[in-house]
Amino acid sequence: MELLKDRIIRDGIIKDNNIIMVDSFLNHQLDIKLLNEIGKEFYKRFKDKDINKILTIEASGIAIAAITAQYFNVNVVFAKKTLSTNLDDNTYESKVFSYTKNETYTVRVAKKFLDEKDRILIVDDFLANGMALEGLIDIACQANAKIEGIGIVIEKGFQKGGDNIRKRGLDLESLVIIDEVKDKSITFRQ
Amino acid sequence: MELLKDRIIRDGIIKDNNIIMVDSFLNHQLDIKLLNEIGKEFYKRFKDKDINKILTIEASGIAIAAITAQYFNVNVVFAKKTLSTNLDDNTYESKVFSYTKNETYTVRVAKKFLDEKDRILIVDDFLANGMALEGLIDIACQANAKIEGIGIVIEKGFQKGGDNIRKRGLDLESLVIIDEVKDKSITFRQ
Repeated sequence: MELLKDRIIRDGIIKDNNIIMVDSFLNHQLDIKLLNEIGKEFYKRFKDKDINKILTIEASGIAIAAITAQYFNVNVVFAKKTLSTNLDDNTYESKVFSYTKNETYTVRVAKKFLDEKDRILIVDDFLANGMALEGLIDIACQANAKIEGIGIVIEKGFQKGGDNIRKRGLDLESLVIIDEVKDKSITFRQ
Repeated sequence: MELLKDRIIRDGIIKDNNIIMVDSFLNHQLDIKLLNEIGKEFYKRFKDKDINKILTIEASGIAIAAITAQYFNVNVVFAKKTLSTNLDDNTYESKVFSYTKNETYTVRVAKKFLDEKDRILIVDDFLANGMALEGLIDIACQANAKIEGIGIVIEKGFQKGGDNIRKRGLDLESLVIIDEVKDKSITFRQ
């Protein structure tokens, strides 16, 4: 997705340890026009799948999922990272280790919102080690929901998350894949 | 907003301590068509204001803000509740006490995304004691941003958050105000 590559080159900030900050348009400040283009692109790639729900994880996945859901005309469920009195007691749970926050947390989805009749598209902003995504896949498996596809905005191809998931036969599409970050310069795949 | 009242009556779940769960359509599973109607209604109420940005707080505010932002043709900034390597070091901060989670947390917005040129609409899903909203207002004040309006989906009128904010002269609009929850029955204002 050239528009997204251009935006990452223009506004992405490369920090130490290969961290690419896209907080000016994707996960702190949100460029809604760009999110609409992302939503359209996910629809283009997955429109032939029989998707009835989009699953994502708070917080950065939510805006992408909500905007994308308009094109599929489906609802969204987002996995929660914290317990709250607003969360139903009866939940699917999965443990996730976050490298960016250096901690393990539990993600939860209320059982009443995901079951064997669901045919889901999972979306998220970033895929690196794939820990958060594995948590969502685990929850979908617990629910016996069918994973029709996985849509990622930015995949770090130099980390193993994407490859591990593709090896399992899941239909993972990343809008851009970054193969290398070196000397403050980003190399995209193809 | 009658559509929203009807939905709360139909699908809201009243728990102990006056907690109303709307997790099936507003803050865990998201009814995107309903969110679009909410976005249109916020636009109707605030379209004459000179709004250039929407400010909200993770996680439940994000989908509402993103969908609403399409009608205003503006971007969104969401305040973060956790530190992360993806967050810029230079932030506005405010302490917020959460009654639903029974803990104090810090909300943060990177300074580069909010300043004295901004004319913001603040949106969130719920307003009860107003703690989260006060945190957002505090951050907007630190940034010298102008608060053009505040849009809340569901206000609990029997708690003091809304009144306190209106007394300060801020233009707070709640799409529904709940005046009483008693014997598993909800009374809406007017």
